[in-house]
Amino acid sequence: MSQPDPRPHVVILGGGFGGLAAARQLDDPSLRVTLVDRRNHHLFQPLLYQVATAGLSAPSIAAPLRQILRKQSNATVLLDEAVDVDLAAKQVMLAQGPLAYDYLVVATGATHAYFGHDDWARHAPGLKTLDDAFTIRRRVLLAFEHAEREDDPARRQAWLNFVVVGGGATGVELAGTLAEIARHTLPREFRRSDPRRANILLVEAGPRVLPAFAEDLSAKAAKQLEKLGVQVRTGTAVTAIGADSVRLGEETLASRTVLWAAGVAASPLGKRLGAPVDRAGRVQVLPDLSLPDHPEVFVVGDLASAFRPGGQPVPGVAPAAKQMGRHVGEVILARLRGDGASKPFRYRDDGALATIGRMAAVAQFGRLKFSGLPAWWVWLVAHVYFLIGFRNRLVVLLDWAWSYWTYQRHARIVTGSDRTDES
Amino acid sequence: MSQPDPRPHVVILGGGFGGLAAARQLDDPSLRVTLVDRRNHHLFQPLLYQVATAGLSAPSIAAPLRQILRKQSNATVLLDEAVDVDLAAKQVMLAQGPLAYDYLVVATGATHAYFGHDDWARHAPGLKTLDDAFTIRRRVLLAFEHAEREDDPARRQAWLNFVVVGGGATGVELAGTLAEIARHTLPREFRRSDPRRANILLVEAGPRVLPAFAEDLSAKAAKQLEKLGVQVRTGTAVTAIGADSVRLGEETLASRTVLWAAGVAASPLGKRLGAPVDRAGRVQVLPDLSLPDHPEVFVVGDLASAFRPGGQPVPGVAPAAKQMGRHVGEVILARLRGDGASKPFRYRDDGALATIGRMAAVAQFGRLKFSGLPAWWVWLVAHVYFLIGFRNRLVVLLDWAWSYWTYQRHARIVTGSDRTDES
Repeated sequence: MSQPDPRPHVVILGGGFGGLAAARQLDDPSLRVTLVDRRNHHLFQPLLYQVATAGLSAPSIAAPLRQILRKQSNATVLLDEAVDVDLAAKQVMLAQGPLAYDYLVVATGATHAYFGHDDWARHAPGLKTLDDAFTIRRRVLLAFEHAEREDDPARRQAWLNFVVVGGGATGVELAGTLAEIARHTLPREFRRSDPRRANILLVEAGPRVLPAFAEDLSAKAAKQLEKLGVQVRTGTAVTAIGADSVRLGEETLASRTVLWAAGVAASPLGKRLGAPVDRAGRVQVLPDLSLPDHPEVFVVGDLASAFRPGGQPVPGVAPAAKQMGRHVGEVILARLRGDGASKPFRYRDDGALATIGRMAAVAQFGRLKFSGLPAWWVWLVAHVYFLIGFRNRLVVLLDWAWSYWTYQRHARIVTGSDRTDES
Repeated sequence: MSQPDPRPHVVILGGGFGGLAAARQLDDPSLRVTLVDRRNHHLFQPLLYQVATAGLSAPSIAAPLRQILRKQSNATVLLDEAVDVDLAAKQVMLAQGPLAYDYLVVATGATHAYFGHDDWARHAPGLKTLDDAFTIRRRVLLAFEHAEREDDPARRQAWLNFVVVGGGATGVELAGTLAEIARHTLPREFRRSDPRRANILLVEAGPRVLPAFAEDLSAKAAKQLEKLGVQVRTGTAVTAIGADSVRLGEETLASRTVLWAAGVAASPLGKRLGAPVDRAGRVQVLPDLSLPDHPEVFVVGDLASAFRPGGQPVPGVAPAAKQMGRHVGEVILARLRGDGASKPFRYRDDGALATIGRMAAVAQFGRLKFSGLPAWWVWLVAHVYFLIGFRNRLVVLLDWAWSYWTYQRHARIVTGSDRTDES
């Protein structure tokens, strides 16, 4: 439909933090960029647990990719899904047809994985997309409704037993917020069952929660969780999950609501790139984040297995993905200018933050470690600051201020049905 | 599980404007109220079209029924669906079991109807629930995405032809907002197709749009719609709707997006009450809104067919439903106090307002009629004022101010899939 564009074509697969950072870095009229995503929006994933727990509405943490890139005239957005990559022909196979590239940036991320127990998925939803968040929100809110209708005390308690599997940041945030909802948001609203009787169990197979943090911060996080009313069980493996129970080692607990925050597996596209992948399916890239034998193909974000000079892996967090995306953008621009060798990627550790609940968080910036209220303030400022768009920042601040004063959560709306999840 | 409560029991079916108004009116410790709804939230339906057109997020116009009634200690909320009513035994058959009443208020409203063409439902979604709004939002946003991918000009135009069936308030609001999205929100974001080529067609079988308004206001509304870029076709009946075309009288128009704002049918529960119903399935009630032969059963809101002293029907609008709900609450309280005869319901016409688009609206208060910017301001103030909850009002105002200045619509997020609608 149009004359061929003679400019080099960079195709970016995935509009998450890595892909979007690469697209923005490549804002240069001497090349054209096509960003492909199967969803129409960029998602601010660090706050997704707030949508799942009814504290924020979905549009507060998501923005259309087209809107974000509308002023970047060399960029096009395609709503499509990459099925395969033909490295020899330099083209991506999209669901709707092939797309040729000169440079390719693969940033399709990771999703939750059930360690070979795919049948657990229907009972224990994970949290990666907005639809996942709606599913969790619906199940949590409906569990309290079922408890209200149930006359049998044991069956009622099964509706009030919530199990969060996985003690990383997402698991800690979900468990802490569930405890707050049960203890503070809902109690006055139910007449027959008491939401304060809810048990929130956080189960972690490893020896401590928040394993990415220093040991003393893990201990502080566990203490803050328990103060909020969460039972923390470390060193406990989940061995079975059914519709109304979960098996923890030798013990079986009656629970109708299990949330999955444990395993992560890289996008299946990683295995189609011909390069070695690690156990989680992440692509082992060269120091400049390109593929061995294919200097025109890069992998960034959670799909990339990259290492820091000391040999530690670059963590699968939003700041790392952004840094990788920007790095690859710079490498491509340098190549197009004819600058020879690629600079290696160097991860700059900006510190780590995890929130636990109301006024509870942990923070680690190099040797500086702190927790409780100061960490919570830093967490709040950082997350609002990095949210895309002035409007979203303002609305999120307003929502949080409102929740803080009233203990209410404004997005407690049940929509959709579980038929979708299970079909 | 508890000792029997000796107080008279009022069961209210439906947590819309009518049912909720009745529940609030019955805030009296001498009786107990059970409000049954199959959804967990009250919906501010007059702004539902804004969720469907990505201007507002769902939690801004919906609030949990439990939260609204949490301070009313004589009220209980049940998340359940009424299947039938046993008038002789004085009990409601809920999906989860029977519920006995002393007084019953049926407020289950209306839904969209396809005049015997139920196969049109999958191609032409209507707008009654939040899930309906998400379906419309998804289809509209994806239509522009399909147009961007389509090379064939005729097929592309089919994605850009939007047909809104029904020229009442909902149809007018949807058509006006679609035109604004196509002309102002999206143009800079697409590289291949031009959203300004979208045709928005508003089809009405009757002789004019907004038939509930005076004739000169209908004419003004049509003019304002055309100024916004909507083609208005009155006196045109839709005779067929398929996946990629719609038949208007003798003409077939290629269109992939048809929205249904035409027919309304009363809740099927109306036919289970043993009283005569009108053609739309509304229950013909006595002047005090009770059933003939059953003074303890009342029907309020869109399900009731009531008349004004002059013989005109009470319109199916939110203020009428609220007034009916309050009236029935008063009648029940009077009966419990032993006051003899029931007062007849008198509808107080507070005027009618319909918005058309940016700075365009029509208003009619008795003999006072106006349109354009003044009507739009009145519409805005009235709708923000009647929204439930301080927080929602503030957020909605903020969203509108932001949309107004930027022409952006913040909820342009595609979630879910059409598999649900069609299963």
